[in-house]
Amino acid sequence: MQKIIRVNMTDASVRFEEVPEKYRLLGGRALTSSIVCDEVAPDCHPLGPGNKVVFAPGIVTGTTAPSSGRLSVGGKSPLTGGIKEANAGGIPAQKLARLGIKAIIVEGQAKDNRFYLLKVDDSGVDLLPADDIAGKGMYEVNKILWEKYGEGTGVIGIGPAGEMRMANAGISCNDPDNGPGRYAGRGGLGAVMGSKGLKAIVVNTEKGSSDVPVADKELFDQGRKKLTKALATHAVTSQALPTYGTAVLINIMNEAGGLPTRNFSSGRFEGAAKISGEAINETTGQRGGAMGHPCHPGCVIKCSNVWARPDGSYHVAPVEYESDWALGANCGIDNLDDIAELNRICNDVGLDTIEAGCTLAVAMEAGLADFGDGKKAIELLSEVGKGSPLGRILGNGTAFTAKAFGITRCPTVKGQAMPAYEPRAVKGIGVTYATSTMGADHTSGYTIAPEILSVGGKADPMAVEKAELARAFQATTMFIDTTGFCLFIAFAILDIPEGFEGMVETVNGLLGTSWTTGDVASLGQEWLARERRFNEAAGFSQVDDRIPEFMTREPLPPHNTVWDVPDRVLDLVHDYQVETKQEQVS
Amino acid sequence: MQKIIRVNMTDASVRFEEVPEKYRLLGGRALTSSIVCDEVAPDCHPLGPGNKVVFAPGIVTGTTAPSSGRLSVGGKSPLTGGIKEANAGGIPAQKLARLGIKAIIVEGQAKDNRFYLLKVDDSGVDLLPADDIAGKGMYEVNKILWEKYGEGTGVIGIGPAGEMRMANAGISCNDPDNGPGRYAGRGGLGAVMGSKGLKAIVVNTEKGSSDVPVADKELFDQGRKKLTKALATHAVTSQALPTYGTAVLINIMNEAGGLPTRNFSSGRFEGAAKISGEAINETTGQRGGAMGHPCHPGCVIKCSNVWARPDGSYHVAPVEYESDWALGANCGIDNLDDIAELNRICNDVGLDTIEAGCTLAVAMEAGLADFGDGKKAIELLSEVGKGSPLGRILGNGTAFTAKAFGITRCPTVKGQAMPAYEPRAVKGIGVTYATSTMGADHTSGYTIAPEILSVGGKADPMAVEKAELARAFQATTMFIDTTGFCLFIAFAILDIPEGFEGMVETVNGLLGTSWTTGDVASLGQEWLARERRFNEAAGFSQVDDRIPEFMTREPLPPHNTVWDVPDRVLDLVHDYQVETKQEQVS
Repeated sequence: MQKIIRVNMTDASVRFEEVPEKYRLLGGRALTSSIVCDEVAPDCHPLGPGNKVVFAPGIVTGTTAPSSGRLSVGGKSPLTGGIKEANAGGIPAQKLARLGIKAIIVEGQAKDNRFYLLKVDDSGVDLLPADDIAGKGMYEVNKILWEKYGEGTGVIGIGPAGEMRMANAGISCNDPDNGPGRYAGRGGLGAVMGSKGLKAIVVNTEKGSSDVPVADKELFDQGRKKLTKALATHAVTSQALPTYGTAVLINIMNEAGGLPTRNFSSGRFEGAAKISGEAINETTGQRGGAMGHPCHPGCVIKCSNVWARPDGSYHVAPVEYESDWALGANCGIDNLDDIAELNRICNDVGLDTIEAGCTLAVAMEAGLADFGDGKKAIELLSEVGKGSPLGRILGNGTAFTAKAFGITRCPTVKGQAMPAYEPRAVKGIGVTYATSTMGADHTSGYTIAPEILSVGGKADPMAVEKAELARAFQATTMFIDTTGFCLFIAFAILDIPEGFEGMVETVNGLLGTSWTTGDVASLGQEWLARERRFNEAAGFSQVDDRIPEFMTREPLPPHNTVWDVPDRVLDLVHDYQVETKQEQVS
Repeated sequence: MQKIIRVNMTDASVRFEEVPEKYRLLGGRALTSSIVCDEVAPDCHPLGPGNKVVFAPGIVTGTTAPSSGRLSVGGKSPLTGGIKEANAGGIPAQKLARLGIKAIIVEGQAKDNRFYLLKVDDSGVDLLPADDIAGKGMYEVNKILWEKYGEGTGVIGIGPAGEMRMANAGISCNDPDNGPGRYAGRGGLGAVMGSKGLKAIVVNTEKGSSDVPVADKELFDQGRKKLTKALATHAVTSQALPTYGTAVLINIMNEAGGLPTRNFSSGRFEGAAKISGEAINETTGQRGGAMGHPCHPGCVIKCSNVWARPDGSYHVAPVEYESDWALGANCGIDNLDDIAELNRICNDVGLDTIEAGCTLAVAMEAGLADFGDGKKAIELLSEVGKGSPLGRILGNGTAFTAKAFGITRCPTVKGQAMPAYEPRAVKGIGVTYATSTMGADHTSGYTIAPEILSVGGKADPMAVEKAELARAFQATTMFIDTTGFCLFIAFAILDIPEGFEGMVETVNGLLGTSWTTGDVASLGQEWLARERRFNEAAGFSQVDDRIPEFMTREPLPPHNTVWDVPDRVLDLVHDYQVETKQEQVS
């Protein structure tokens, strides 16, 4: 029997609850967002007792379905003020799923200003004092917790940034090597966890993938085989990602003139080659470290890597595209060791790397460091963990830092910093940034696939009529984020119809549903509509679905184009008739 | 002929323009807000080139009408993100009016990162380099400018906070002694002025009140005499304010249990008597300084004062109720010399005292100082002018500081800090805070008059059905803020019908209109509706018309009441049918 764990931090109580029928067919993002919509007042203070933080493995997480070990975390975001779901790989999600944990809901606030640890294992669930790990960085936390609870323990935790309730605090999941680098990073959910007084969750189980109930084993196996085959066939998932990691995109986006550089003042970085996936691969070959590293057992894509110091010792894992870009190109930094060190600080202190890199770039624009000065950037970022006034500014993210220093070139939507794709050079991704329920977020509708990579068709990156494209990608993504599959399966399933069928069949096999491939987008839209309603009740309007003004005014080299997608297009993206599919199935 | 001065900072050009017919009957707030609505895109960045800062004397300013020397300043607020009008006394407004300047519109942004000075006098208008005053505090600025342009010169300027584009930067107007203490303080318009590269405006003229054109001299004189008589008759305007200053309210509000204390955690301050108007009067009697000080020639109320140091030397002017409370009771500080020093820092650096005091209180709650520690508060506030990271936090106001330190007890509406009246103890003022176009602002609808002072009728402070009351006060206030009369005439005209008639007759006499006393509220509503439309287009919704969540949860001593006004009441305040009066008259 699947259960929900409810943790009330105010009275330090934990209890198991039945899974309400309305949540039975949900997992991952659709589940965290549904619980947030049902239980959190949209106008509550994100750091107050009214907010909740919800953890949910995806629908097929914990099974033998390939690359399906994602954990969704939801709540009201301290960064955007709207609903938030961020998901991560790493090892905890599969363990939770195998324990039959559909979701963990953390509510209330510890009254004694102390931090606690939630222990979940085959024997049950306990809330314990966490004085031994409070105040510590995630590397040390993970080490202590493996010593205490055994190697292989799943750890979900926050660093000092989350404890200090900073709006850029993320939530770490450990990888198979116990590195803290798999982050549900975006939107400050680490601060929500911190505001509750919850430092970490440890998860252990003896149960295996066969303990996850599957309604129709035959259909499930048929689906996962189709999907696995597609992943093993597609050039992106079978070659590019395992060989070069996600940073394979550095040269591609630079070539396209869409690699945001020096705080979004150029689309091309002269140092791109030095921080590219190819360079990471080459250096890793020389020094040691690893490419093709899986972030959880059962991943067949293995986009992760381990970066080694010049002496060959472990430095940080992974250095992936977004971090490499944010802490590199966007700060004008072309030294991979500096980027790796910045990345390591983020992982340790508990920060989202995208937001941190954009924050540093704004700080550089404000004169706190020269663009390209990696050593000074390391100094600045080190302030966050100390909680100094400067650290408080930087730890609260890009928009906050821009306001602190009166900087108007602030690349954020709904208060969340843009990822590594320039809206002025790739319009569709800008439409996603503007209209996503999550704030600027490439993972909420990755139109880069057709616009740049010729995956899932081909779209002219400069064309502005992208409402339908953005809608389709956002809806499909919503579905994938719900399944527990890694979003990177999209590369394969967009091009290989059998792969797409395989995904749906895997889900149907598990749940006993008979969703069609056509249902994917309609279910996704319906769940998106729910998130939109939350945001509206939280105070968002069309004005929040916009790209920052400076991008409409400043032409971006090398294409020298401005943001010129009409507001009409943006307002069309979510102008759909919400279907009643969910009401039928739940 | 009245003129508008348009200053384009981008190309450093200045020009006189005709006054468009639609602005002919406007002045003060209705004029600045109309220009902002007509010329500023509601979704522009408040510190970008798209915003403007507009200065406008009131309709009757510059004449012999009593207490009518107000200057309105308007723009899009960096603090609230909505439309903003803040008005101040001091000597510049009357001079501008006598020069026939209906408004000064400052647009664009200086391209060279330098600061400029606008000189307006009988010979015309000039934009000049201001290198000699850039970076300097307002005390020194005013001194230099009187030396350079002559004693009696009107000075409008910003301190370092405005130059650094901090969201709590105000705009100073000098008083007859050349003190910089008359501030258009609220909402960060000093940062907008700073973002344009405009450090100060100096105004000189040989012209007198008789140079202001009056359409119907007889009616005008009849009106101003009625009004003057009412002001000389009413106990508040003729006795309480000149004798004790506005701080006469400290004991009154403390007695009512509505004096916010230690970051809005109590409604009563044990040190109230030590910082009361009575105490200020007594100490001033002993040390020197002054009570009954007018902030501009022609003021018959004279609520201002001059606070002297123990040795009798000039310290700061004025120490008025809001500053005294914000920097005193709300920080738990009961030492008037510490409060005066904090006030002086605000005046010098260029900060709104209400916002600064609430900011310090939040910082105290975050542990940066103990409540009541005046010396430490002075240290903290001194950081703002230095532009240190801590100064950047504090200089950006209360909500910003709360976010920096993860504090949820944040007494702001639309990002602007609450003044010295507790919504939990006086519900009507809370309705005004919640629903004002300006963010939390007592001067936008002073329901304290009937709720506490028995002026303009009597209302139970604990009653929650205050939509009509708040609407009536906001509309009438909008009208008064447009006339150029000091809002304090309201005490007299609310109780003395002839005074109210006198105000309207004075305005009609000047303009040649035939507005009735009944038109006051309908015109006010119409102008308010325009501000509301701007805010809506800037992204505000009903969710922004709310009192902070913590006040609905935390009972306030001594009455132990929470904020319990239903949202329905708040949403009723501006649910009026906008009349077309303005269209008829303009």
